[in-house]
This record gives sequence, structure tokens and C-alpha cells, in this order.
Amino acid sequence: MRVSKLLGQRFKNPPSDCVIESHALMARGGYMKYMANGIYSLYMPGRRIMRKIEAIIRDEMDRADGQEVLFPVAMPASLWEESGRYSSIGSELARWTDRSGNKMVLGMTHEEAAVHLARDTAASYADYPFMIYQIQTKFRDEPRARGGLIRVREFTMKDAYSFHTSKEDLERYYAIQHKAYENVFRRAGAKNVISVKSDSGMMGGSVSHEFMLLTEIGEDTLAICPECGYSANMEAAEVKIENERVPSEPLEKVATPGKGTIEEVCDFLGADRKRACKAVVYQKNADDSYIIVFIRGDLEVNETKLRNYLGFEIHPGVVTEESGIVAGFIGPVGGANVRTVFDASLKGIGNLVCGANEKDFHYKGLDLDRDVKDAEYADVAKIFAGAVCPGCGKPVITIKKGIEVGNIFQLGTKYTEAMNMTYLDADGEAKYPLMGCYGIGVGRLAASICQESHDDYGPIWPMSIAPWQVEICNLRCDDPAVNATAEKLYADLDALGVEVLYDDRDIRPGAMFADADLFGIPIRAVVSPKTEERGVIEVSFRDKSFKGDLNRDGAAEAIRDMVAEELKKYE
Amino acid sequence: MRVSKLLGQRFKNPPSDCVIESHALMARGGYMKYMANGIYSLYMPGRRIMRKIEAIIRDEMDRADGQEVLFPVAMPASLWEESGRYSSIGSELARWTDRSGNKMVLGMTHEEAAVHLARDTAASYADYPFMIYQIQTKFRDEPRARGGLIRVREFTMKDAYSFHTSKEDLERYYAIQHKAYENVFRRAGAKNVISVKSDSGMMGGSVSHEFMLLTEIGEDTLAICPECGYSANMEAAEVKIENERVPSEPLEKVATPGKGTIEEVCDFLGADRKRACKAVVYQKNADDSYIIVFIRGDLEVNETKLRNYLGFEIHPGVVTEESGIVAGFIGPVGGANVRTVFDASLKGIGNLVCGANEKDFHYKGLDLDRDVKDAEYADVAKIFAGAVCPGCGKPVITIKKGIEVGNIFQLGTKYTEAMNMTYLDADGEAKYPLMGCYGIGVGRLAASICQESHDDYGPIWPMSIAPWQVEICNLRCDDPAVNATAEKLYADLDALGVEVLYDDRDIRPGAMFADADLFGIPIRAVVSPKTEERGVIEVSFRDKSFKGDLNRDGAAEAIRDMVAEELKKYE
Repeated sequence: MRVSKLLGQRFKNPPSDCVIESHALMARGGYMKYMANGIYSLYMPGRRIMRKIEAIIRDEMDRADGQEVLFPVAMPASLWEESGRYSSIGSELARWTDRSGNKMVLGMTHEEAAVHLARDTAASYADYPFMIYQIQTKFRDEPRARGGLIRVREFTMKDAYSFHTSKEDLERYYAIQHKAYENVFRRAGAKNVISVKSDSGMMGGSVSHEFMLLTEIGEDTLAICPECGYSANMEAAEVKIENERVPSEPLEKVATPGKGTIEEVCDFLGADRKRACKAVVYQKNADDSYIIVFIRGDLEVNETKLRNYLGFEIHPGVVTEESGIVAGFIGPVGGANVRTVFDASLKGIGNLVCGANEKDFHYKGLDLDRDVKDAEYADVAKIFAGAVCPGCGKPVITIKKGIEVGNIFQLGTKYTEAMNMTYLDADGEAKYPLMGCYGIGVGRLAASICQESHDDYGPIWPMSIAPWQVEICNLRCDDPAVNATAEKLYADLDALGVEVLYDDRDIRPGAMFADADLFGIPIRAVVSPKTEERGVIEVSFRDKSFKGDLNRDGAAEAIRDMVAEELKKYE
Repeated sequence: MRVSKLLGQRFKNPPSDCVIESHALMARGGYMKYMANGIYSLYMPGRRIMRKIEAIIRDEMDRADGQEVLFPVAMPASLWEESGRYSSIGSELARWTDRSGNKMVLGMTHEEAAVHLARDTAASYADYPFMIYQIQTKFRDEPRARGGLIRVREFTMKDAYSFHTSKEDLERYYAIQHKAYENVFRRAGAKNVISVKSDSGMMGGSVSHEFMLLTEIGEDTLAICPECGYSANMEAAEVKIENERVPSEPLEKVATPGKGTIEEVCDFLGADRKRACKAVVYQKNADDSYIIVFIRGDLEVNETKLRNYLGFEIHPGVVTEESGIVAGFIGPVGGANVRTVFDASLKGIGNLVCGANEKDFHYKGLDLDRDVKDAEYADVAKIFAGAVCPGCGKPVITIKKGIEVGNIFQLGTKYTEAMNMTYLDADGEAKYPLMGCYGIGVGRLAASICQESHDDYGPIWPMSIAPWQVEICNLRCDDPAVNATAEKLYADLDALGVEVLYDDRDIRPGAMFADADLFGIPIRAVVSPKTEERGVIEVSFRDKSFKGDLNRDGAAEAIRDMVAEELKKYE
């Protein structure tokens, strides 16, 4: 491809909406063009990167016995009503009405479509297991599109669905997919991807993992153990608290005038925050009824864990006078008649400070075992740096940020039951198959790799997904000798099957190199009057790992071998 | 791929909505599954055919200097308002509103997106010409989805857009695309595809061609000259009439009581229908004003040609009493004061019969040159079998049916002007680039080839797009020797890079062969106790062009060579 004919502009200053480097570089480098909030077109370099990632994914899915299929983007709402998601998913689901008045949706995932394709067909246990996948456009009406291709509304996704007759077989295959995902990320050149246990959210099911590319700009927060390798999304991370039991003193009401926060009370009473019983108020979305969570004073409530424990949607509570709740002075002894949940951090601990359910008063000496009958304990705390690792038990948890570049779920029978997909087992009994589902966002992966692998001047694309493998910079196309060498190298490399971007423009070397940095192509071959005089081609790697001259004769073959050598790193 | 694990069912009876063979066979063969009106999912065999066609198209587009890009499926309505198509296109355009209340559309073509991607970027004449294309999902809310993948609402399409600085350059490139299209259809194994001049319809522009696969079940009607190769969609075909001038007699009013149709009048007066001036009444959609078209009595009006000539939408007229039009007795002399158009078939002809604009009366002896001043002539007649060929002038036009499998348009500046895309020419003057656009429906092409190439038992896929190249039928998987041979052949062919579908099921040979016919795979290799005894593999071609035995030793290599030989036919 000749740069002179390549559509798309490179420019110096990023669009004003770029807050992360990968977005700025991919916009500045002519990879993509903004059309609407979270909606982009891709220029040729962007499309080529996507296609290379797609090819890697396709290869790994085929190796994992996947059958490539195609589901519709536009689906009848009736199918989503079968699964219950038409009503359970909010405005992320794009809904519309066709010319005949039928309610329609745009696919954001395709569990319903996968069950629709498989049911009536996989009727016998002998037809299992199988996996179907597609690489197709999805639409999710994100409230907060951001970061260029990191979080968009329309995106290309590989989504796979496996079907099984037993939990063991699902788990066996889940492990195969886990391995396939590791392969995909390694082959695409993503360096810092880890898999973490995650919250399954709206997908249903129990076991799930997210593949996280570790980066400061990540939206997800992860708890990682540097000792044993344990990792989990903060939304799902278990918190293990080992409390030291101290002798309980009698419950004593003390005046704490105007001390309505846990910090103020602890300071006022000279108490350690680890010896306070903090209250946090929520309300159930459905009926606004109150839930009070008590938690150790130094910890925070993890709302996702609380939501999953409760089994319904909640929001931070707004305390009204009629509620009987005394905001700022809430405690577990007496008080309003609402549901209370005690975080496990309060187990086995005595002599606590807590609210007295009376304005300007707290208790000292609270002992939950003694003072609160039938307390309901659950792990709803947010994990923190230095927490005890649920894996190895050492207090070494670190907190990192990551971008979710893939996820895998053991869905179980959630969808097959709801949509009545059954098979006959060996005994002739009708059963619901178990499902797993496995997703990778192609554009997000491309952008994440750019985020991980760039410098101030542009992306540093791994050879396996680079839009082209080699860029030729012809620094003097008006010099016949230089031009002839550059053109010949272009033709020779092309004949050898090397993917070449050829900058044949009559522009200043500085501008050409600036563009080359934005193209981020792994190997650069420079032809200039100086190299021409020396009878060489100057070759350098975008990642600065090599720079040197190649004899003009045989340069194309040498470059082809360098490309092959680089590609081996991503096998 | 093992058939035992392949998702999708083959069955004997087609779904009740199948009215054409290709639809019935692709439904019965487990290629696709109906989800909603005009919306299908594809099973693995269907997806593989699509991917092979996509690869052929991509290759030809790349050879034609195409840059593969990606446009969004979901686009803001504002972009379509720029081009004017948001209001000019009817309910085929799927419209919806996103969570923020923005009006959105689903892309049915991407002229707007192409201009959006290219404008601001291709700012200088030196940046031209260029072509961008994508292979992506489209949605068109067809009122009459039919024929399986022939006419759907959601479909995969290759759409390409070229940009030029002169009409000559557009025409030069248009010819390159025309050739690329011929290559695509030949390489995909479509045998009877011709290019015909077409009506540009809503796409705008002037010159356009449709690529038509000739088949009885086609929805389009074509005029074809077997002598010179002229071809045109009936909607656009020029009608050349050579009238014999006869001496004009005086205009004479005659009573024709109750003779309100051209047939009745001609029979009554003993006149040849070629010597009658027939009237057809239309109304303009916008204001219901009348247009009367006069045409030679033996011809029909082509409403598309009339619409294009008039430049506005029309519908068949409903004659009211207030209109002053005397239905059944309309003539060009006197009569109601409405716009009249004379078809060119009435030029240079005398002595005609026509209505007298008075109930139960006609004229004889009409001579338009003499009796009607300033008659407005235009070619608005429907072409017919035996018409004079506009190409070679011989009266040999034949009428055939076809499916449109591709189309190419010279759009000109319609979109660039509307969306204000300009470039600076060599003189520094701002100009609108000219566009061409080029589309192929991938699924429709697959279905059309199935329609063209099948027998009663299933599709006969060309080697270039067959879901697999070879099918192994293992007739006795319970016989260890037979099974070992089949498994080895499967492994050997796979190692040689041959795409194999392996029927490893324990079913009756009849059922296995019936399924094999539905898979339509070009080469079939049968392993049975009989072949095992003879030390051979029985090989047959799905198109019945070959059947014979191969020595078991070296069979895989021989089959690989057969595949290669077949593939050559589609290069």
C-alpha cells in the first residue's frame, strides 16, 4: 500500500475528547474516525489490525472445536422475552419497531440466538458437547462511551457458546477456553493480561473469569496476590478478616453531640476505627424498603457483592424522617424495624462503638454475639491493599487497574431452562443442557494493546497484529536512484509475501518519520541519498530493539527473515 | 469436521414457506435457521460458504486498489439528513432512538458513511482517486422478504465507494470494477451472470449496471439481445420503434358505444392495435394531479421509465368526474387540461384511432403531427420479446428473468454536493469529487448459486465456495477395518490441507448419502466393507462428472490433486 493513496490523515494534536493515550494515538494516526458518541468508522490501518486479531481468535476457536456461525444483529424482541432479558436489561439494549410494528432489539450478546439455533437440533445427549461462535457487530447503548475503542456502543465481538450435558463437561471445556484465551492474548501481543474471578452480573451463572489487561487507565479494579497469583475483580473478591477478640465491656450509652460520621465518633471517643461498627443505608430499587449494612469501621461496602447476596437491585439510601432511622447514629441495638446485614468483618469481635439510634448518642462496649440475636452475616466488604489473600492467607493483596479484554462464563441452565431447550439423555429423560459463553471485544483488544505498547510518538504494534509488517520510507522520491531502490524494495518485499506500507510521498523526512511513528509498524526500512551512496538499506525496529544497515542486495530477503523471526514470538 | 458433532439438522421436507428450490435445499440441509421475517442465523456450512465468497470478493477488491474499512451499522440520523435520504427513503430504513433520545438509523447502504470517512481527509486532488470498501451487516426493512437468503432484511454486503476528480477517471475505474465483478462471479462459480444497464433508482447518478444471474425464479425482468449481447433491465431498456408512415386521412369522429378498451375499439373498427393511440392515466403522488400518457395500442407503459422521465413519483390514476377526463374515451385532441406525454412509439405514424374525449365516441384518422401541436415525446414504453435491439437494430430482443447479485453505479456528485465534500484542484479551486459505488450481497449470491447449481437432492456447490472440499462417508464405523481406513483418510487429507467433512455416524448408507447430497460437497469419498475388501476408496463427484476407485495407498494425495484441479476452474 502506498501512503500517497492511503485514506486517512495523521495529525499532531489529538481531538479534544481524547483522555487516554491509545485513543489519542489511534485518532491522530488515522486508524478511526468519530461518527457519533461511541460509534466510529475504521480506516484501512484500523481495519487491518482488527482483521488480524479476528484471524487469531478464529484460529483459536477452531482449535477449541468451535463451529463458526452467524447470528443476526437485529432480532425479534420475542426471543429476548423468552429469556426474560427483554425486561431485565435496561436502556443498554437498543429497542426499535420494524415497519410491521414488531418489537425488535439490536444484539448486545447472543445467548438467546445461540439457544434458538441449537434447540430442536441438538436433541440427543450424543450430539453434545459442541461450541458455536461468531465474529459479528454488536450494539450496547453504553451510557458512558469513552477511551476511543475501549468503551464504545457499536463494536465487533467474538462471542462463543458451548453446550454440555454435565457440569463436569462444562468445567472441562471451560478450562479449554481459558487456555484458548491465554493463547489469543499472547498471540496478539498483549503482555500483561491476567484472568481474574469475576462477578457474573446480568449474564447469570456462577463461575466466571475476566481477562484483564493491566493498565493504569483501566476502569476495573483488581485484587491481586503477588505471592500465590490469586486474582479477582474487586467486585467479586472475597474479604477474609481475622479479628482479635477482646474482652467485652458492658454496653454503655455515651453522648457524642454532633459526631455523625465514623471518623468523628472514633476521634471523639479515642477508639480505633477497627473497633467501630459502621452503618451504611441502602434501599431496594423495587419498593424503596431499607437495608442497613453494618461493617467494621475501617472497611467499605462492596455494593456488587451486597447486591448479589441480596439477590435484588439496590441504591444508596435516602433516609427520611418517617423511616425511624436516625441518620448518623444508627446502631444494631434497637432502632428502626428494617432488614439488617452484618458484614463478616464484624464476626468474633467485641467491645465495639456503634450508634445508639438516638440523635447525638452512641454505644460503647457492643458485643454482637451478646447484644444482637440472630445477626445475619455475609461477606459484603470491599477488598483493600494489604488484605489477607483468600488464596494463600498472607496479608499481601495489591490493588491494580485493568481493562477487561475478554470474559468467560459458566452459565449453567439459565438460558436453556428459560427458553425450554432440552435433550434426551441416555435413559430417555428430557434434560436441560448446560451452557458456557465466551466473549472477546476485538476493537477493545486492539486499543488495549496500543495502550500497553506505545511511546510518545505512536503505537508500537506487535508484529502479529501490525497493520503492515514493514514500512519503507523513501526520503527522496525526486532522486531517481533513491526512488528506484525504494520502488524495487517495495516490489521485492511484495513478491516475497511481506506486507508493506510504502511511504512514497514527496515530503520532509521529519514529517515522514512522524507519520511512521504513528503507523507503528514494527520494521522500518529507510532509503535516502546517504543509504544509496553506501549501497545499503537502513533498517530499524519501532520498539528500538534493533537499528542497522542491510546490504541493498538481498535486503528484501533479510527483511522477510526478520519478519518471520518476529512472528515466531507470537506463535 | 465430524458430522456427528456438526450442529444443524438435515431433513426431508422443506419448511412450508419455501417456494423456491434453493431456499428449500438450504433450509433442509442445515445451512440456515429462520428467526424472524427476513432474518436468519447461519449454521457452520452456511457461514463457511459465506466466508469463501467474502474471501473472493475481498481479493478482487484489493486487486482493484480497494482499501478495506469498516462503517458502523448504527448511524446517527443527522448524517442521513445531510444527504437528504433520511426523508427521501421510506420505511425500508430502520429508524430508532437511542437512550439519549438521538435519532438513529440502521445502515442499508453506506454512501453517507463513506463521504463522512473521506471528507476533511482527501483534501487535495493529489489524494484521488481512491476506493474504500467494507464487508458488513446491513439492514433493509423489506416489505416482502422471500426466497430464503435471496431477499432478506438483514444481510451481509460488500459495499465499495470510489472517489474521483473527473468523469473520465470515474468511468475508467467503473470499468475496472465491472471487470472485478465478472471475476467475482466467475470465481464463485456462478455460471449465468450477465451485466445489464439498469435504473439507478434511489441511489442517484446516471450510469449503472446490475449483474443478473439468469434464472426462472428471478424477480427482475431483462431484455437481452442474442445477436449483439445487448442487455438491460426491463425497467431501463430503451424501446426503438420504426413506424411505417401511412397517408393520413381526415380526422373523423365515430360512434363506439360501450367500447371503452383498446381491444374493443380496434375490434369494433377493424383497426390494427398498432394503429391505435392508447391513453393511460397516472397521478403525481405529491398533489394527485393527472398525467395522461399516450402510447401505441400494442405497447405498455413502463412506469419506472415514466417516473424517471417525469422526475417525480406517480401512481396509477383514479379518474374522478370532476377531472373532466372521460375514462375509456380519452384522446389527444381536446379533452381535459392535464399534462400529456406521448410515447415515442407514436412518432411518425399517421391514421390512428383514438378517444374523442366524449363518451361512446372515438376518432379515426388521427395524425399527431397535424392534429396535436407541441406534443411532448418520450421513451416510456415497456420493452417486449421481438422488439428492435437498441444495440444492433435487429428485432430479436428476448425477455428473461434474473436475480440481481451485484450492482455498480456512477453516482457523480450527488452525495459529495449534498454533504459538502470538496477538494482543491490543481488551480486551488474547491470542487466536488465524483463517486462510484459498488455492491454485492454475499448471502444472496450464495443462494443464487445454489439455485443455479442443484439437483433434486441438494446443492451442487462449486469447489471454490463449497463449505468443505471433500466429504468422507464411513459406511460402517462399527467395522474396525473400515473405520480405521476412514479415520486415516480423514487425518491424511487434513494433514494435506484439504477441507474435509467426515461423516462418522453410525447410520444407514441411504440416510448418509441423502445427507451428503444436501451438503453438496464436490468430492465424495466412500469407505465401506466392499471398498475395504478391494483395497480402494470410492470417489465420486457431486456433479456426476466422475466416479471411480482410488487405490487406498496414495488416495489422500490423489484426492488433494483432484481438489486442486477443480479449484483451477475458478481461478
